[in-house]
Amino acid sequence: MSDKLWGGRFTGKAAEWVDEFGASIGFDYRLAAEDIEGSLAHVKMLGQQGIISQAEADQITAGLHAIEKDLAVGKVEFSVANEDIHLNIELLLTKKIGPVAGKLHTGRSRNDQVATDFHLWVKHRLPAVQDAITELQQTLLDLAKKNAEVIMPGYTHMQHAQPISYGHYLLAYFEMFQRDFERFEFNKQHTDNLPLGAAALAGTTFPINRQTVADELGFASIYHNSLDAVSDRDFALEFLSNASILMVHLSRMAEELILWGTYEFNYIELSDNFSTGSSIMPQKKNADFAELVRGKTGHVFGSLMGLLTVMKGLPLAYNKDMQEDKAATFEVMDTILASVKVFTGMLSTMTVHADRMEAATKDDFSNATELADYLAAKGVPFRQAHAIVGELVLKGIQEGKTLNQMPLAELQAADSHIEADVYAELESKTAVNRRTSLGGTAVVNVLKEVDRGQQILADRS
Amino acid sequence: MSDKLWGGRFTGKAAEWVDEFGASIGFDYRLAAEDIEGSLAHVKMLGQQGIISQAEADQITAGLHAIEKDLAVGKVEFSVANEDIHLNIELLLTKKIGPVAGKLHTGRSRNDQVATDFHLWVKHRLPAVQDAITELQQTLLDLAKKNAEVIMPGYTHMQHAQPISYGHYLLAYFEMFQRDFERFEFNKQHTDNLPLGAAALAGTTFPINRQTVADELGFASIYHNSLDAVSDRDFALEFLSNASILMVHLSRMAEELILWGTYEFNYIELSDNFSTGSSIMPQKKNADFAELVRGKTGHVFGSLMGLLTVMKGLPLAYNKDMQEDKAATFEVMDTILASVKVFTGMLSTMTVHADRMEAATKDDFSNATELADYLAAKGVPFRQAHAIVGELVLKGIQEGKTLNQMPLAELQAADSHIEADVYAELESKTAVNRRTSLGGTAVVNVLKEVDRGQQILADRS
Amino acid sequence: MSDKLWGGRFTGKAAEWVDEFGASIGFDYRLAAEDIEGSLAHVKMLGQQGIISQAEADQITAGLHAIEKDLAVGKVEFSVANEDIHLNIELLLTKKIGPVAGKLHTGRSRNDQVATDFHLWVKHRLPAVQDAITELQQTLLDLAKKNAEVIMPGYTHMQHAQPISYGHYLLAYFEMFQRDFERFEFNKQHTDNLPLGAAALAGTTFPINRQTVADELGFASIYHNSLDAVSDRDFALEFLSNASILMVHLSRMAEELILWGTYEFNYIELSDNFSTGSSIMPQKKNADFAELVRGKTGHVFGSLMGLLTVMKGLPLAYNKDMQEDKAATFEVMDTILASVKVFTGMLSTMTVHADRMEAATKDDFSNATELADYLAAKGVPFRQAHAIVGELVLKGIQEGKTLNQMPLAELQAADSHIEADVYAELESKTAVNRRTSLGGTAVVNVLKEVDRGQQILADRS
Amino acid sequence: MSDKLWGGRFTGKAAEWVDEFGASIGFDYRLAAEDIEGSLAHVKMLGQQGIISQAEADQITAGLHAIEKDLAVGKVEFSVANEDIHLNIELLLTKKIGPVAGKLHTGRSRNDQVATDFHLWVKHRLPAVQDAITELQQTLLDLAKKNAEVIMPGYTHMQHAQPISYGHYLLAYFEMFQRDFERFEFNKQHTDNLPLGAAALAGTTFPINRQTVADELGFASIYHNSLDAVSDRDFALEFLSNASILMVHLSRMAEELILWGTYEFNYIELSDNFSTGSSIMPQKKNADFAELVRGKTGHVFGSLMGLLTVMKGLPLAYNKDMQEDKAATFEVMDTILASVKVFTGMLSTMTVHADRMEAATKDDFSNATELADYLAAKGVPFRQAHAIVGELVLKGIQEGKTLNQMPLAELQAADSHIEADVYAELESKTAVNRRTSLGGTAVVNVLKEVDRGQQILADRS
Repeated sequence: MSDKLWGGRFTGKAAEWVDEFGASIGFDYRLAAEDIEGSLAHVKMLGQQGIISQAEADQITAGLHAIEKDLAVGKVEFSVANEDIHLNIELLLTKKIGPVAGKLHTGRSRNDQVATDFHLWVKHRLPAVQDAITELQQTLLDLAKKNAEVIMPGYTHMQHAQPISYGHYLLAYFEMFQRDFERFEFNKQHTDNLPLGAAALAGTTFPINRQTVADELGFASIYHNSLDAVSDRDFALEFLSNASILMVHLSRMAEELILWGTYEFNYIELSDNFSTGSSIMPQKKNADFAELVRGKTGHVFGSLMGLLTVMKGLPLAYNKDMQEDKAATFEVMDTILASVKVFTGMLSTMTVHADRMEAATKDDFSNATELADYLAAKGVPFRQAHAIVGELVLKGIQEGKTLNQMPLAELQAADSHIEADVYAELESKTAVNRRTSLGGTAVVNVLKEVDRGQQILADRS
Repeated sequence: MSDKLWGGRFTGKAAEWVDEFGASIGFDYRLAAEDIEGSLAHVKMLGQQGIISQAEADQITAGLHAIEKDLAVGKVEFSVANEDIHLNIELLLTKKIGPVAGKLHTGRSRNDQVATDFHLWVKHRLPAVQDAITELQQTLLDLAKKNAEVIMPGYTHMQHAQPISYGHYLLAYFEMFQRDFERFEFNKQHTDNLPLGAAALAGTTFPINRQTVADELGFASIYHNSLDAVSDRDFALEFLSNASILMVHLSRMAEELILWGTYEFNYIELSDNFSTGSSIMPQKKNADFAELVRGKTGHVFGSLMGLLTVMKGLPLAYNKDMQEDKAATFEVMDTILASVKVFTGMLSTMTVHADRMEAATKDDFSNATELADYLAAKGVPFRQAHAIVGELVLKGIQEGKTLNQMPLAELQAADSHIEADVYAELESKTAVNRRTSLGGTAVVNVLKEVDRGQQILADRS
Repeated sequence: MSDKLWGGRFTGKAAEWVDEFGASIGFDYRLAAEDIEGSLAHVKMLGQQGIISQAEADQITAGLHAIEKDLAVGKVEFSVANEDIHLNIELLLTKKIGPVAGKLHTGRSRNDQVATDFHLWVKHRLPAVQDAITELQQTLLDLAKKNAEVIMPGYTHMQHAQPISYGHYLLAYFEMFQRDFERFEFNKQHTDNLPLGAAALAGTTFPINRQTVADELGFASIYHNSLDAVSDRDFALEFLSNASILMVHLSRMAEELILWGTYEFNYIELSDNFSTGSSIMPQKKNADFAELVRGKTGHVFGSLMGLLTVMKGLPLAYNKDMQEDKAATFEVMDTILASVKVFTGMLSTMTVHADRMEAATKDDFSNATELADYLAAKGVPFRQAHAIVGELVLKGIQEGKTLNQMPLAELQAADSHIEADVYAELESKTAVNRRTSLGGTAVVNVLKEVDRGQQILADRS
Repeated sequence: MSDKLWGGRFTGKAAEWVDEFGASIGFDYRLAAEDIEGSLAHVKMLGQQGIISQAEADQITAGLHAIEKDLAVGKVEFSVANEDIHLNIELLLTKKIGPVAGKLHTGRSRNDQVATDFHLWVKHRLPAVQDAITELQQTLLDLAKKNAEVIMPGYTHMQHAQPISYGHYLLAYFEMFQRDFERFEFNKQHTDNLPLGAAALAGTTFPINRQTVADELGFASIYHNSLDAVSDRDFALEFLSNASILMVHLSRMAEELILWGTYEFNYIELSDNFSTGSSIMPQKKNADFAELVRGKTGHVFGSLMGLLTVMKGLPLAYNKDMQEDKAATFEVMDTILASVKVFTGMLSTMTVHADRMEAATKDDFSNATELADYLAAKGVPFRQAHAIVGELVLKGIQEGKTLNQMPLAELQAADSHIEADVYAELESKTAVNRRTSLGGTAVVNVLKEVDRGQQILADRS
């Protein structure tokens, strides 16, 4: 007979490497605290319901607390032969308190146990993700306020498009992370749902009380279908999807930080603490951390694709394929927590070259829209205005002068509506500050939106 | 000079195939209605704000309505040379009403225009997705009620685990689709957000009123940052992610329908309308539609992966890469709408072989847990009970008899706690109906959950 | 009875939208030529083997040729009711020649027929992909030769690292596309394999001759297992994987073209033919085509992910899920063919600002490695040399001067090995031309590698 | 000043968690052997070329060998503060032999060093993957030979289609793994390519000899472009793509093993060593290992998607994003090696229920094609024959009898060509053995293909 806990009907014994392949203890040891937390709530309920005696419940509870302490001081060693964290802890318990440990598994199964542990693990960490996002948003608000009056080129297609406030740029990311925050908030709904009590797949014949367990563990709701409770990994897919979108945002900003730190742009300089050097080129100062976050985006996307693939077409209820859910989720959690913090660190310690940014708006054609709008405001249909300015720009490029540098007569030759007041409107600062429409880049707007953002964060706590 | 609307500064002319490569009209023609809807709201506001004269606004409005009518009767032909739906419609308008058409583009850009069209398109269709899901959920409730008393083997690892009610199984999917419904509901929040007024990237100098436009178009909120408004595709990523999870659920059920329709299982038979035959094997009746939905899951996952990849590391604000967002979203929308409807059709027309299902629970060992629970209830620690039953099962397999078929003496030899009342508990119907814990498979639970489900759907409308 | 070709045992009739969902004619119409080609070879063999009479074979052959002609002049309309290209063509044949058309399907099935068509389709197009790659490689060689002596900053982490020859940079892409070419060459091996004759899944009882068919169709080999023949889509997965890697390369170059065309870099200017403008900003000249290729990379990755997902866990032999293979492959083929051509077009028409490139190497620290190597050559351990130069660079940044601008005494103060000959070595041109190790950037190497590349292309034809 | 090896120009010091985020030693410690191997070859060449003195080369060589020994006995501890395996080993070397260790890095950079290590690592393991595949193929050949005469239903759409030899089924997988073997063979071409000597990105000014190093390390070719050498990860993408396709094959067979081990199919029984039990249901015997391989397929696909995403749009040359290449490749290598071995183990120890397989072909309609072919052979156009048999099948289903069970008169009523000899042809064994066309399922073919397979494996060694 096999020496496994489930080995009653088995006669053979597997090779060690086969055991290792099947074992999950290599990563699910991270569920140890949640496994004990879940067991404590379960055994308390078993005692209350009289399913086991109060004395047995007390014995098991004491044993679990003892293991908790052992874990805290690093006295515990898990074994691959015991497959997973659940069996490892159950065996530790048996060593501590003898066969009564076997009563802990009354009315539950590994299927609802692992689902519960996993829900708890994610549930415990979503607020940490949100806190990290809040800190990053606060950093952005601070920077936006400080840099509201810094003028820089706004880009589309990586080309100078129209001048904007650097504070306005920073607030665009505030908005993205706001949506990320909201997505993780929504993520809680399907995470904060108790599977325990579903047993293997069909519920149990023991007179358990799931509401008691939910209250004890702080779950907001309870799965209403036992098959669904053990088969569902939607909350993990939502998490990986939300993490992927978060990484989209971080990678976009990473790309810009890297770019803006180049010799050519030179808009910002990252602090030494968030840069690295080269083993061969002494002058190098690389935005390694921004690059790494950008790179880790691939891993996060891949983890989402991986779990989607795992779950696709899987018959109900539990199948071993689902063991793949945890390593992916654990790694992605680590990745996003660290990535968001790295960004908070990078942004709050970098140097902004406001002069370089502003200079870049001076001798380009990013004020071309101003001239077109100027004409349109004087009644020229916008499309016609656009064409007139387009030809002036071409002339400017060919003759090496900006619109501001063209004498009035030259401008009037293109269109007679143009008057001397045009030059003021062609200033990049004017261009920025005339965009006062809701969401526009005018400095007054930026400051208003910083206040609005501050209120959002304040309402959060 | 180029003949493009934006061609003022251009001197060359591209080859036709190059134009075709760059053009999006091949798929964004599907935005035609939304493009006109957005333009009508924009021009109304331009008139109200006095940015253009009321007469001009009326002319443009009439022109747009005329194009709307032409579209309705199929009188319009779009051209690749005009790149996209926006320029195509603007040129149609110019043909209809002359140069005043050029005033429509005052205070907006293609960047906020396409974002608005795309938001509108998704916003218009999310309720249709939800309606299709509701209809599928209703079908599941009806089936669950009808089949509440049908007993079938519940599976884990594709092995008979414990008997369950077929109605209970169906309700597991009700729960999954409920979460899908809630995800699409959340999806609305970031979709129902107006980008128009962000112009190219920085807002506009014209005294526009974005709230008026939002009200006219029925948008619940307005982007507060112009850069974000034109750069954000979170709502599409959320949609593709939600669609992917929905397809996970459909593919799981598809897998089971296919399996259960095999010669070996023979639990269900799909109707002729949702089956196809073979060009060479006259006896074949294939679950083609279930297979196709399962297969299309790959495309939906791929579309999510595709758009995540597109957006990763993209600097603000608009870049042409983002043109790839629409074809993916359009196709996935078509796919999920049809897939959900196919399932409603398949489920409501299939034949259930209740006798086959029940028979499968009779001569297997899916009642082994009952015996273990029986022993545990008599005070045997569960782990020990599990081992005792495991050995009985092994004996049964070797000797070709089920637990029910073992005489009492044989059972008592294994454990003396066993008494004659055990046989009743070993019946699959008993096993099902004793699982009355919340979420358990007992028939009484199933009926209760059908009522609860019915209430959820009722509250929806 | 159903009116489907496979409808003998069916009594119901599906709704139109259900038919549409299941039909593949919307995309597999692109297999029309290959379907007829395969049928012509099959019927020829049937006649030769006496499985049908020669007269029947002739009749069918004539009928197929007639359809071929109808197709050529656009006289054919396919119908969704007939599901796919195979049944559509068979019905056209029946209309043309009557019931004898039914003999064409002797000894084959749709399963091996569609596999054959699909193999043929890919087999016919792989050489076109390779030709497009060759043309792009030739363009790179031409440019590399022309720009061998243009000095530019080489980048790592987007920071100036060491000066390189622009020709050298271009040849890096020659090497990447060389590997792409080789991958598509290898792709042929598993594509050029005839499935026809596998019939539905098990082979056929008719005395067919598969070698004859293979010869007729120009297939290099024949599937040796009928189950494998109809279940295998490795060749499509290989294609999508190769296409994905190709797009990695194109997207990397796209990124650089976009970047180098910015106001800040200004290293290159794309021609008007491969640029577009803005609807609102008259000055804009956007690298739309490079961006679009970069964006389409997402779609190609997604298509690979999609087909991998479809094939995962699919039992043998044919399942309808596999219908998803074609649309993905067709679209990716279109995408890569156009993308490679767009690159050939962009590269061969762009303007290179050699002066800007060279200027960028003059006032930076990209010659720091030269100084470290200079010291190492004089016996200073490299790590120590690296540290000495690192401190000089820091000093230079703080005091605003490059290494070349530091007086000899200042350099010698850092390390006494430094002598007056150091300044020549600090020139970027010298730095480039001293790197004559195999694969190094020296101009002499670049020209040698251009010759080698030219020989590779010459050997190809 | 920072204490990093590259820290000359740095003044700040990063927090520990930031260091940890950036460090790769957590996974690239697995490159230790390859890192030393590469350094040994490099230093040997440096000595031979006189770039460093022979005495220095000897000292360094001895130091590296000493570290190798320390590693072998587990005496080495790596530190996160030293970032990666390369710096860790260099520091160990410095501790052993003092500042002369600094000379090892002459003429190379971490960029070409890590590329070399990574190439070597994959190069060393591809043959192991191939050996594992060969062993699996041999197992399939053995099983196919043994089971050539076992008749089972062949499936399409999971429906009984036509009877086949179980040996024939097994050989389908032989073919798939043959293509996998060939793909990993091709994978060698772009792996077996030496990057060392490319230095940071541009080659080196030292008179290195890359051919010597290539010979020493056993590389078949040398990168001809230094930028490409340090930027290329095609070989890893190829590997991940090949691994993904391999997992497609394994997951397909896994699906079938799981299915065939169900109560309903009961075609095979996995050995106890490759099965696991349940913590709650004593009767369960789960195909956990097959499920786990099927599940791990998701991770492998995700890793491919991850690295594709990382590489997309990455400017030349090295960027830190690329650090993500290794963890993915290492994990996938472990996964496929173990997965292939698990399959060899499962297949060689499972029990085949030949009687169950054959029985399943007796009372179904999988011989319907035989009857259609029978009619076609008598001159009835195949399409007509198909329809006739379809109606007979429908009748059979309705009346509960197979084709064999219908009296001759009943068959003749459907078509007068049918004669008494039909019954022999309707036997499943006859159906199998009449399919002697190349690749067909006849037993004689199966045995022939086993021989051919055996020859392929023999030619391999």
